[in-house]
Formats: sequence, structure tokens, C-alpha cells
Amino acid sequence: MFTYKYPRPALTVDCAIFCKIKSIYHILLIQRANPPFQKLWAFPGGFVDIDEDIDAAAYRELKEETGFEGLALCQFKTYGKPDRDPRGRTVSVVYYAILESENLPIVKGEDDALKADWIPLNHLPELAFDHQKILSDLLDYLQF
Amino acid sequence: MFTYKYPRPALTVDCAIFCKIKSIYHILLIQRANPPFQKLWAFPGGFVDIDEDIDAAAYRELKEETGFEGLALCQFKTYGKPDRDPRGRTVSVVYYAILESENLPIVKGEDDALKADWIPLNHLPELAFDHQKILSDLLDYLQF
Repeated sequence: MFTYKYPRPALTVDCAIFCKIKSIYHILLIQRANPPFQKLWAFPGGFVDIDEDIDAAAYRELKEETGFEGLALCQFKTYGKPDRDPRGRTVSVVYYAILESENLPIVKGEDDALKADWIPLNHLPELAFDHQKILSDLLDYLQF
Repeated sequence: MFTYKYPRPALTVDCAIFCKIKSIYHILLIQRANPPFQKLWAFPGGFVDIDEDIDAAAYRELKEETGFEGLALCQFKTYGKPDRDPRGRTVSVVYYAILESENLPIVKGEDDALKADWIPLNHLPELAFDHQKILSDLLDYLQF
């Protein structure tokens, strides 16, 4: 157990990976294996280790949950509204990447993910946490 | 005291406020009252309260340490290298704002700041933490 004089938020990373196939954008989502929002779809992501750079955490979580790697991630924005995670205060640094491809790269849900899949932006399921808001902000920013 | 199953970083905000006077950019810095980096200059900023939105923390810390308020802050980037704070793992969300003015707004070092002052970018002192790196990144981004 770890004890501090003042309360501290948990720190996570989330990765929004877009793939454009014949003018249609897809996003890489995972189906959550665990509560909260169990079985809902979400960005691949998870908790930053205490001795791990936040960029490195993003690459690690993306690989662990989807098998996907080899793409440079850009930091987008940090989301920290106090009520965004029912487990308690959690602040998430969001990363993104965009690739264009002939085919959707093969991905596989592993670790905390039941499944991983590329979902066309016009067929989005309900998303966990504030990931719908994050995605909307990203789409505005990227002008997709 | 607050106890968690896994170690957690501390979360801070930092504010880089620029003021352009007759084509010369100045940055609002504070002289630190407390260790680490006591008496060195730094961005106004500080710890996010556990029930406080990170945006709100940025506005609060800026006002507490410099008296300055009334300007919309934009989120820039989050800095989280494990060794960036000698007190232990601390992740900082950096905000910025730019104003143009006839005169430098009056500011006053308060709370954790011995002094607050507008410093021309060509007369920068040594900065605390990784604030020199943050400032360099911001100047690249803003193309000043």
C-alpha cells in the first residue's frame, strides 16, 4: 500500500488510433473485460506505472491491449474532470495517431480487453467513460 | 493520510502567460518561495485539488501566485517524465495564454511565490524543474 499526505488522482493514458481505408476513417477500440463499463467499447489504454514515462505508457498499453505497435503517437490533451471515472479521480492523457492503409491492420484483444477491432466512425457503439467526448474533441481538432 | 493499492504521481498545473509589448514578448514568472528550486524562477502553478477540475486549478494557481486573472487559458501539453521533480513523480498539465497590451499588467508574488514579474524572453533567468524545456516547446509551437 502507498500512503501520501494529500489525496492523489490515478493517472492513465488512452490511445485514439485512426485508420483511413478508401476515404472511410476507422477507430481502434477495445471491448472492456473489467468493470467499470464492462463489455462497453473504449480506447485502448490503462494506468501509467510509477516509474514509466507517460509516452511509454501509451505505447505499452496500446500494444498490450490490441497487439498494435510501430506507429508514432502524438499527445492530444489531458482529461481530468473530477467525476469522469466512477472508480475515483482519474486523469487521462490522450494520444492519437492516424494511418492510411490498403487494409485494416490485424489487432487482437488481450490483457484487459475482450476484443479489439477497427470500427468505422459512422458505426460507433456506445463508449465507456468520457471517450465519446474525447473522440468528438479529436474529430473537431483533426477536422475529419 | 491517503492510502492506495498502487503508487500514484502527484498532479500539478503550470501556466505560461505571454504578454507582447511593442513586439517584445514577456513571460510571467514567479520566484519560488519554497524548495525544491527555492528562489529560482518558474511558471506560476501548483497542485491540483482532488475534487478540482484541472482547468480550474490552472486559473486558481495563476491567481493565487500572481494576482493575475481574466484571461482564457489553453491547454498545451502534459509533462510526465519520471525524474522531472526531485520530490517524487509529479505530472504537470501546462496551460498557456497570450495577450497584447500597451503596458504589462500589474502582478504580485503571493502564496508560494516570493515575487512575480514579467520577464522579456531575451532576459530569461535559470528556470526550475523542466520549465526551460517546456518554454522551448511552447516557443516552437507558438512560433514566437
